[in-house]
Amino acid sequence: MFISFEGIDGSGKSTIAKMVDERLRKEGYQTVLTREPGGVKIAEDIRAIILDRNNTNLDDHTEALLFAAARRQHLKERILPALKENKIVLCDRFVDSSLAYQGGGKHLGVDEVYSINIFATDNLLPDLTLLYDMDPKDALKRIDKNKNREVNRLDLEKLSFYNTARETFLDLAKKYPKRIKIVDASKSINEVFEDSIKIIEEKLHESK
Amino acid sequence: MFISFEGIDGSGKSTIAKMVDERLRKEGYQTVLTREPGGVKIAEDIRAIILDRNNTNLDDHTEALLFAAARRQHLKERILPALKENKIVLCDRFVDSSLAYQGGGKHLGVDEVYSINIFATDNLLPDLTLLYDMDPKDALKRIDKNKNREVNRLDLEKLSFYNTARETFLDLAKKYPKRIKIVDASKSINEVFEDSIKIIEEKLHESK
Repeated sequence: MFISFEGIDGSGKSTIAKMVDERLRKEGYQTVLTREPGGVKIAEDIRAIILDRNNTNLDDHTEALLFAAARRQHLKERILPALKENKIVLCDRFVDSSLAYQGGGKHLGVDEVYSINIFATDNLLPDLTLLYDMDPKDALKRIDKNKNREVNRLDLEKLSFYNTARETFLDLAKKYPKRIKIVDASKSINEVFEDSIKIIEEKLHESK
Repeated sequence: MFISFEGIDGSGKSTIAKMVDERLRKEGYQTVLTREPGGVKIAEDIRAIILDRNNTNLDDHTEALLFAAARRQHLKERILPALKENKIVLCDRFVDSSLAYQGGGKHLGVDEVYSINIFATDNLLPDLTLLYDMDPKDALKRIDKNKNREVNRLDLEKLSFYNTARETFLDLAKKYPKRIKIVDASKSINEVFEDSIKIIEEKLHESK
């Protein structure tokens, strides 16, 4: 089973993904918790170009193609082998992030960004996507509080960018209601975690 | 005017492109002779990942996405500014190379590779493409003779790969007869050069 965790920066999805991973392992499931580039060398090399602060003239379309390239390599080297071994793959961000951030936030067009991601993934989508939804203003406040988190080029984008990304995520959830489940990320971390576990366990029982 | 030079490795297109550049400059035209990554830093960084011989597990789809990403950046930083200044851009390889090499030679599908290149180029195609056609066996013999030319990962691919690439180039020429003109690259270099100049001058007069 392939589960992705989506949402804007500061929505808490990475923290929840880790908590879910621990819970599932305790319950005896074999899991792989990952995020792009996930320690895959070629994908790391690609991400280094995207995150290089000196690359101020990195074109938005180039960036979207690089994300798709890193995604492909990570999918091939990490996700697909784990799925083949019947593990539960918990992936922090996947295609929907590109659709929301590049397609929506950067106005490249959701369908356009989807077209290069179909090529990158052979149209493989997660079995379940948890979308951590909250007001970008509050999410960005959370990020500012956490001084240990490294601020990268993408974080420097404006609030309007995150607002559009959020809207695009919600549009995707409307379009794929069976795959994408919205979780209210403004609640306390324990509540968000319990809401997440409930959705995942339903899916696990459903697929048995 | 945007002119691309296409053909399999060893077809002589790079040599001819240089000769064409010199001739056009002598005739008073303002030209820009370039090839991907063309000294564009981000595109160079991307190509370094593709050509890194240690990246033996580089997936074919990842490679095609990286070529498209480097193309986008080179297009934006070098080709489009030159076209805006009404210069003649002579580009050694462009989209057709990806269609022939990755789409055909590596069997990723011409339409599939075209889809990511539409995204990369906003569907901008050259005004004229010169396709240097010859038997891959003879082309590869030419490469072997030239000891100074650096052999990269792509050169190590098999002859069958080049045969399929050649067929794909010829299919493209059939599909886009107005844009792609076939030049017999098995002739002497001076004959190939004169054939090329004739086609280019026709196009230049046509567009006046």
